[in-house]
Order: sequence, then C-alpha cells, then structure tokens
Amino acid sequence: MTEVGRGMAKGGFSRRAFTASAAFAAVAPFVVSSQAEAVIDKPADKPGKGNVRRMTLYAERLPDGRLGYGLEPGKPTIPGPAIEMVEGDTLEIEMVNNLDVPASLHVHGVDYDAASDGTRLNNSVVEPGGRRTYTWRTHAPGRRPGGSIEPGSAGYWHYHDHVVGTDHGTGGIRQGLYGPLVVRRKGDIKPDKQFTVVFNDMSINNQPAHQAPEFVAKLGERVEWIVITHGEFYHTFHIHGHRWADNRTGLLEHPQDQSRIIDTKITGPAESFGFQVIAGERVGPGAWMYHCHVQSHSDMGMAGIFTVTDADGNPPDHSGDGHSANAHH
Amino acid sequence: MTEVGRGMAKGGFSRRAFTASAAFAAVAPFVVSSQAEAVIDKPADKPGKGNVRRMTLYAERLPDGRLGYGLEPGKPTIPGPAIEMVEGDTLEIEMVNNLDVPASLHVHGVDYDAASDGTRLNNSVVEPGGRRTYTWRTHAPGRRPGGSIEPGSAGYWHYHDHVVGTDHGTGGIRQGLYGPLVVRRKGDIKPDKQFTVVFNDMSINNQPAHQAPEFVAKLGERVEWIVITHGEFYHTFHIHGHRWADNRTGLLEHPQDQSRIIDTKITGPAESFGFQVIAGERVGPGAWMYHCHVQSHSDMGMAGIFTVTDADGNPPDHSGDGHSANAHH
Amino acid sequence: MTEVGRGMAKGGFSRRAFTASAAFAAVAPFVVSSQAEAVIDKPADKPGKGNVRRMTLYAERLPDGRLGYGLEPGKPTIPGPAIEMVEGDTLEIEMVNNLDVPASLHVHGVDYDAASDGTRLNNSVVEPGGRRTYTWRTHAPGRRPGGSIEPGSAGYWHYHDHVVGTDHGTGGIRQGLYGPLVVRRKGDIKPDKQFTVVFNDMSINNQPAHQAPEFVAKLGERVEWIVITHGEFYHTFHIHGHRWADNRTGLLEHPQDQSRIIDTKITGPAESFGFQVIAGERVGPGAWMYHCHVQSHSDMGMAGIFTVTDADGNPPDHSGDGHSANAHH
Repeated sequence: MTEVGRGMAKGGFSRRAFTASAAFAAVAPFVVSSQAEAVIDKPADKPGKGNVRRMTLYAERLPDGRLGYGLEPGKPTIPGPAIEMVEGDTLEIEMVNNLDVPASLHVHGVDYDAASDGTRLNNSVVEPGGRRTYTWRTHAPGRRPGGSIEPGSAGYWHYHDHVVGTDHGTGGIRQGLYGPLVVRRKGDIKPDKQFTVVFNDMSINNQPAHQAPEFVAKLGERVEWIVITHGEFYHTFHIHGHRWADNRTGLLEHPQDQSRIIDTKITGPAESFGFQVIAGERVGPGAWMYHCHVQSHSDMGMAGIFTVTDADGNPPDHSGDGHSANAHH
Repeated sequence: MTEVGRGMAKGGFSRRAFTASAAFAAVAPFVVSSQAEAVIDKPADKPGKGNVRRMTLYAERLPDGRLGYGLEPGKPTIPGPAIEMVEGDTLEIEMVNNLDVPASLHVHGVDYDAASDGTRLNNSVVEPGGRRTYTWRTHAPGRRPGGSIEPGSAGYWHYHDHVVGTDHGTGGIRQGLYGPLVVRRKGDIKPDKQFTVVFNDMSINNQPAHQAPEFVAKLGERVEWIVITHGEFYHTFHIHGHRWADNRTGLLEHPQDQSRIIDTKITGPAESFGFQVIAGERVGPGAWMYHCHVQSHSDMGMAGIFTVTDADGNPPDHSGDGHSANAHH
Repeated sequence: MTEVGRGMAKGGFSRRAFTASAAFAAVAPFVVSSQAEAVIDKPADKPGKGNVRRMTLYAERLPDGRLGYGLEPGKPTIPGPAIEMVEGDTLEIEMVNNLDVPASLHVHGVDYDAASDGTRLNNSVVEPGGRRTYTWRTHAPGRRPGGSIEPGSAGYWHYHDHVVGTDHGTGGIRQGLYGPLVVRRKGDIKPDKQFTVVFNDMSINNQPAHQAPEFVAKLGERVEWIVITHGEFYHTFHIHGHRWADNRTGLLEHPQDQSRIIDTKITGPAESFGFQVIAGERVGPGAWMYHCHVQSHSDMGMAGIFTVTDADGNPPDHSGDGHSANAHH
C-alpha cells in the first residue's frame, strides 16, 4: 500500500484530508484486516528464505573514554548504528573487538543459535583484537502446523555488549555499547526520519546532563522514535504534543485495534519500543520537549527538544504568542 | 447503544442476565466491530468541528500550604476538577494564577499549540496575579489521506503545572497542582460514579498516610476509576475483588479483543489509565481495599477502601462470616 | 482444536511445517475469530455452573525458617503449588495454618466474597492452629444484559498471604507464602511443561543469589512460563532466544492481534503474566539465560538457565562452535 500521505510534508495535511477523497474512497473496509489475514494465514517461513547480508561492526573506545560500536574503524558512535532488517532476512555481523578487554554482541528479538548469544556462558565473546561472526535470522509470522500463530520477528529491538565489566555486560552497556535494531514486516510504513533515545542510567544516549540531542523534523514528516532503556533505573518516556498506540508498531493497525493511546510510557532496562508520529500533526510547529517524566530525572537533565519546523524548515516560534493564546487574551 | 445493564443496581444483575433475553438477542455478532469500522472508516476530523466551551481554572494555595486548581476562587481541590471532553470538542481554559509564584497548565493527550504548552520553554506560563487562556482541542479517529489510521483523542489523561519549583513543575506537582481529564469517544459508555486516584510520591491524592479517600458505590453501579501517577516512584495499583482490561477503555471492546485482564498494574510518573467496573460484580458487597502493592508503600499508608454497599445503600458486612466461608466450616 | 504441533517435539518442527499441509489447509481464515465470537456472544455465565473442587493447603515453616504453602503437611514449597482452574470452576480451599502467627490466603483475578478476602479488614485470616475455607469462583466471558462484554476469569494469576508481618502480608510474602494460579479458557492450548519464576525482592523464588532454578525442556516442547513479582522492587524479565506476545495468553490469538512481541517486560509487585514458547523454536538447543535485566539485579544473582536439550534429551553445546559462527569464520 502506497502511503499517499507521504506527500503531506509538502502539501499540508489538514487540507489534503478533504481534497484527497479519491484516494480515501479506495480504502475499503477491512482492507487492513484482509492484509493481516494474508500475512498470517500461510505456513510459517522456512529459515533463511530471505536475503542474506553481511556487515562489520567495530567495538572501540571513544577519545573521551566512552565505548561504542561503529561501522568503520575509528568511528564508534553512541548509540551504535541503527540496523534494519525485513522479516525473512539474515544478517551476518562480523564484530571486530578493538578494545583491550573481551567484548560481545547480544541481540534482542531475532533468531540466533547459542553460538551467537554473545555470552561467556555460551563461549561467544570476542577477545581483544579478535573478531567473530554473529548471525541474526528473522522470519515472517505464519501458522504452525497445529494452527497456532507463530509471531514474526518484526519489532523495535536492540543489541548490546554482554561481557564488559560483568557477565551481564554492565560495564559495556554503562559506557555506551548498545544500539537499535528495527525489523520491519513487508508492507510496514517507512518513516522519513528516525530518532533513537536510549535512557541509560541517568543519561540520554550517554550524553552529559542537559545535553540530550535535539531532533529536528519538518511539519508533516513521518518521524520514527525508537526508545530503549538500559542500566539501573525505570523511566517514563514522554513527548509533548504527540502520542502513539501502545502496540507493536505504535500505529493503530486496523479499526478494531483497541490499543491504548499514550504519550507517556514506563520502561525498564532492556525494554524497547518504537512508534511513528506525523511531526506537528494537529499541533503545528514548535519546540516540543521529550523527557523522562520521573521528576528528579527530568530536573537532572534527562530532557531534550523535538523541534518541528514549518514545512519549509523555518524554526518555530517560542514567544508564547501563538494563535490559541492570543485569540482569547 | 443503551446500556440495559444500568438497571442492574436496582434489579440484581445475576438474575437479569437471563430474563433480559430479548435485549440480548438484539445484539448481533460483530455489532461492536461494525461500530468500530464506522467510526474509523471516514476521513479524519477537520480541526474544531465540535463544541467550543470555556472555563476558568484558579491555581491557589490551600490553607494548609498545599496547592490546588479549582473552578472557583478560594476553592482549590486536590486533585483538581475532573474535566471531560468528547472527541471533537475544544476547550478554552482561562487559568488565573492566584499564587505568589509563576504557575502553568500543561496537558497530556490532547491537541494544543506550542503557545498552550504551559512551559517556560514556550513562554506559556502565568505570572503571579496573571491569567492566560490555554486551548485544548480534540479529534475523533479517522483515516489519513494515505489510508493510515489517525488515533482519536479519547483516553484517560491529566493536566498539571510545569513551572513551580523547577522548569518541569516538580514543586507544583508535589504540592497538588494536578487533575484528571477524560476524553470520551461518541458512544462510549458513561459511568454512574467516577473516582480519581493519584499516586503522588508516597501519597494518594496528597492526603496524609493512612488517610486515602474512601470511595462508595452501590452494588451494580458502573464505577469509573482514573489512576494517575506523579513524582518520583513507580507504583502498582491494585483493587481487591475487581479487575479490568489493559486497553484504552479498560473494557473489552469486541469479542476478539485479546487485552490482558488485570487487577494490578505497574505505573510511573505522568502515566494515566482508567477503567470501569460494575461494583461488586460476582463478588458482592464488601470493604474492598485499593492500594499500591509495593509492600512498603502499602504498609506506609498508600491504601484506601472501595466500599460496595448493597443495592439499597446498606453498608457491607466485615465479620468474615459470609456465605462462602460459612458454608463449608 | 487439537494442537497438531504437539507432535513437534518428536518430529522436528521445521520440516513438519511443510509436510502437514493437510492439517494446515483445514485452518480456514477467521477460524480463531469465529471461535472468539462463539465464546463471547452468549449471556454471561451464571455463578457456580462449572465443577466444584475441594483442596487443602497447609501454611508451614520450612526447616530453614522460610515459609511456604503445601498440599500435604510437612511439605511446604516455595512457590506454593501451581493451582489450575477452567473458567466456570469453583475451588474451595481449606487452609490449615500450622504457623505460630495468623496467616491467610488472598487471591488475584478470580471471584470471591469479602469473607474469602484473606485480610484482617474482612476478618478472614486464620489463627495459629486454625483452618478456614476460602472459595474461589471463576466465570467465562459473555455479554452483560446491556451488551457490554464481561471479561472471563482466564489469566495467569497468583495467591499470597495478606497478614503475616503487616496487614498487607509483607512478612509472609517476603518469606515465601505465595504461589501461581492459572485459569484457563475452554479451548486454551495446554503446555507440555510449566515453569514459575517469582521475582521476590532480590531473589528468584526465594532461592539464594546465583542459585535460581534450572528449567529443562526438550527441543519443540511447549513450555509455559508464569512470572510473578513480589516485594519492593521493579524488575525486567528477559529470556534469551525466545519471545512472546504481550497479551492475555502470550500467544497471538488471531491474525489481527496487534500485541507487541517482546522478550523483556517491566513488572512490579503483585503483577503476574504468563506465556508459552516452543522450546528452541528457530534457535535450537542451548543454555538460554533467563534473568532480571536490571543490571545490578542480574549481577547480584537474579539469573538462571533455561536448558533446551535436543529432541532426545541430550544436553546442549556450550562451546560456541555452533553452525552460525563456524560457517563464516
């Protein structure tokens, strides 16, 4: 299904909603439902039927002492690179350990043998200077032979070290060895932009307090947020002016989807979720805070700005003199 | 849809279930589903198509030093007044700041311009002695031009100060500047009674320990609970003898709704949820505890009583000599 | 519906998926949906229409000082016995208190009169040397007279003391007075094996640190996990190599079920959830860790092993020399 709305960033969506009636009329009731049926009501995938890709990931120390994964030597980032797969794909990741301690790669959500577990328990860590290939497989949903549904691999997942500091990777995670993994279902709507927020202990993305990244999008752009938590504390992720469905995709998938619509979500270490919003939808441009809503955490600096510009990229007004306040003063 | 069961409080519901067969027969399979289709499968609302209402909210200090919002000067309450909207409505709230420090009104879940954000960042706070109009808009769910579903505004939301004490309103919230907001979808079942529980730091509704409100309902009344968390801690909300669906409304909305049925839910600062129960359904009258189930929190006083009387309002028996225990002694 | 897949443990499921086409073809689209309709679209159950069973539960002190419930005198266990009911069943539990302090039985999720509340408030605790019958009732989902859906009792629930130490049972729970309760819906798929994990303060099942139980299953067995939290702390439950749906059963129930698929879940005191996995599905045999993912909690010992053997029961390989790593070295 083509997302006609992708043109929204340019055209302005409130008006388009009523001029695009031809497109709307084409959306028959149950169309999404039927699609879901078609996806599920087939036997589950055989392993390895999709694409096989290879990549290399370098575990390295940043100049300031933090640790990160990177796609090229000398260029580690925190979070590590956003990795994307489509259900059915296999990914072979050669991890090169340029640290002076053993490190590893442990992943959530996808299919991997014990040899790709990334743990000392399963002898799958990488010595300093070594390299090791971790294989991640994914699969589409389908019926098991008995008729029960095997869920697919699609989801907002993540990867992290499991051995630096302790056998659970507490030191590696604390210093930055983590990153997002998105597995998409065929037909899932792709975003225009993608932002990753990792609540790691009392930081966002291991940035200093009060220095969380500013994320910028134009009015109407489809923005994907990936939220991961690590470390010791629980947090509550909140964005001003935007909200999402508390389900697999963060989007209501069909008219009967009764998922709760939320703008704040409690989350703890190693949980991850994601969602898409249309930047500024029904609220307009603005400097919209995103933050942990535990009061001491936001006060201590776990807060950043989601800047929604107008459709041409002009920065939003902070003056407080917007229409809604003015009109009734 | 008329809720025939509203007569239950008088008639006794276990017998009615089998005498009301005519009413039951009228409920065709998929009726709820079809309703959901009808709600969603139309273009999304134009902004501002519903009713526009105005109200005034006063931020004031209580005689004991706590802070509260109120509908009249000199009458602040904690929580603040329960505000209700129906999807499509617009609400213009003039906030009058009768405190001696800047205060504001920040809302969750609904649509508002940056000028109604209630933050210092967006210059939308109110100086002592000042007033400012905050505009909250809501919308029904519908299809975006591209076919994806835009969720509606319906939900159990809340509002709070965002500037007293810190730029995140930590002082205002701690002292009582918060309240519930319910946005209903057309057709949502309305309750007979509504109770709000705010877990704020280690208190319920900023009451002293062991003095949480007693909530009273008659057997068979439809009771709506709104649960909000604020402050520093996570909590687990629990009620004895009653349970709900962990979705948007707390009610199973159609036969395929697979939401988990729960009687305990973890929740953190700025989260909110709500649900309806039929008082005493299948368990009868009683003094039913509601409390945070974190053991030290309940021991320290985060517990109250939900009193379900008989249908005539007679108080329940605490003797422990009820039928089920007697019958088999 | 017979779960043909039950034969998977012997036959190897990846091959079966494509040889069992006859069984698969019999699964018509919407079959699960229709079943759900049939379950719900009838009047709600009259109380007590199912089986009535009786059992005795003994609250006792273990030789090491911990407390537990048991099915026979002198044989308390931690957790207490896994109790199963089918929606509609009534269970009369005579609790015998062999402790030297008052104790009780409080249950989550099912229907009980105030006299079976297990609290001092409702005079339903048991003096030392005494006995008391607690009655738990359950019901199937159905339509209320007005057409709204009354959820059924099915769920992963639990029971615990509510009086030892404090009026919330903090001492009883801390020392081991708790256990799992599973209420099944007619037609729910039954597991081959069932494991219970209770995160109780900083322990798993009140075991010493680093001594959590090892759970063993053969490749392809259907394994049910019941996860309960008690005490003071929040935790995040995680299993390596396996994942589940965040809904009532942990299984996707129909093709439109949009529940998030997860392998990590935040949970707090008195919450409970459960799910089923096919041991080693798509990941093979292995020593798969299960643990709390709060870093200090796992480091301090809240971690155990889920051992998946091959179909013949041979232990898995820990060498790290598995296929996926070897193939690409």
